[in-house]
Amino acid sequence: MSLLTGFHAIEEALKSASKGKGTLYVSGKGPRIRKIEDLAGNKEVSIVRLSARDLRDLTGKEHRGVALSIERYAPENSFEGFLASITDSQSNLLVLLLDGITDPHNLGAILRSADQFETDFVCIPERRSAAETEVVANSSAGAVHHVPFSQVPNLSRAVKQLKKCGFWVYGAAMGGDPINSVDLSGRVAIVLGSEGRGISANLASHCDAEVAVPTRGRVDSLNVSVAAGIILYEIRRQQDW
Amino acid sequence: MSLLTGFHAIEEALKSASKGKGTLYVSGKGPRIRKIEDLAGNKEVSIVRLSARDLRDLTGKEHRGVALSIERYAPENSFEGFLASITDSQSNLLVLLLDGITDPHNLGAILRSADQFETDFVCIPERRSAAETEVVANSSAGAVHHVPFSQVPNLSRAVKQLKKCGFWVYGAAMGGDPINSVDLSGRVAIVLGSEGRGISANLASHCDAEVAVPTRGRVDSLNVSVAAGIILYEIRRQQDW
Repeated sequence: MSLLTGFHAIEEALKSASKGKGTLYVSGKGPRIRKIEDLAGNKEVSIVRLSARDLRDLTGKEHRGVALSIERYAPENSFEGFLASITDSQSNLLVLLLDGITDPHNLGAILRSADQFETDFVCIPERRSAAETEVVANSSAGAVHHVPFSQVPNLSRAVKQLKKCGFWVYGAAMGGDPINSVDLSGRVAIVLGSEGRGISANLASHCDAEVAVPTRGRVDSLNVSVAAGIILYEIRRQQDW
Repeated sequence: MSLLTGFHAIEEALKSASKGKGTLYVSGKGPRIRKIEDLAGNKEVSIVRLSARDLRDLTGKEHRGVALSIERYAPENSFEGFLASITDSQSNLLVLLLDGITDPHNLGAILRSADQFETDFVCIPERRSAAETEVVANSSAGAVHHVPFSQVPNLSRAVKQLKKCGFWVYGAAMGGDPINSVDLSGRVAIVLGSEGRGISANLASHCDAEVAVPTRGRVDSLNVSVAAGIILYEIRRQQDW
């Protein structure tokens, strides 16, 4: 079970929830909470009223008067299903593969950007704990409920499958070609590694080429979720999306 | 006094520190900490050894074996000084004005991106508490020590001053012109508002035009630090930087 406390995260979870699934806990009042209660009512989600103190005990942290307990937070996706759904006429596809990005805030922020740029599929790292899942959902501002993503056990195998489907696969790495000088139209997949370690060597060896956001900073690099946002923006810009 | 705990933040602070200023507290070992001790030694910064527990008491949180107490974290900057330093031949200048972005994590991440894209000046909101300042410095990965920025008491006045110096001033706002369809070369200033409230109406009325990152998400918007990163990237891309 995932316990959401962000207004956005709760609203988006309710919009995509199945009828009768989950429980909404309410201690506060106000127009935003009333709107959330209406959404819950439409989905026949149980509403439990309790004191602000009891809600804090339940959530284990500060809250804004409302929390949603819900089982699944992601649509049912599979990478194989996504690949099978691609038709010959589809160009300008965008897939994101995340290698070792384990910080749940960064993961949530990347999923939020993936939603904004209509990323067609996101391959994420290993399964996470419930507590982390909650941070991801809150950091994504609810985007986890919309972006097609799933865990992929072997990213190198996923890269090979993407290449068979006509994708060019780029690894994001310092020293790569500047993204604005690379043709990123067509079917494009981007592999992002963690800030500290980058992409694993084996996975990098499967990529067609390396790209980078051109920067000239005096500290070491961009935050990984900012770099992800810039790369997604540049790809969609070039794809005349 | 600001107490820094991030490796990057400490390294960058030491690099830009005046000799003999600040105190380095060390409880841990390892190559990264040794490197930090060498940096401190070069700057004649006092080094205090203590137990991990005492360091936790001092910092009030989890740490990685090292903390730096230092007085100033920003270079001495003034907006007036920056404006006065602009010469007639300087084109492709980039100034960022932050209106109501109070979350210290977002502010730090924006300063980190501002460093990566060599932003010429950043106008930030009102002075912050020491605790917040510390979060900003850590979130910026040390960029606070390099990016020229200062508090500007009246952003509308700053916009007027920038216009007098030949800047085009754009407000970032949903519904603005897509950044990739606007000419962002020359002297450009960007005003960013908070995620919830956007730019204040009075300040918006002083901007020359409104711009936006083109997105199509199902949740409401990009994270403000990601949007800032994309806008800075796009400006520098157009400026053939």
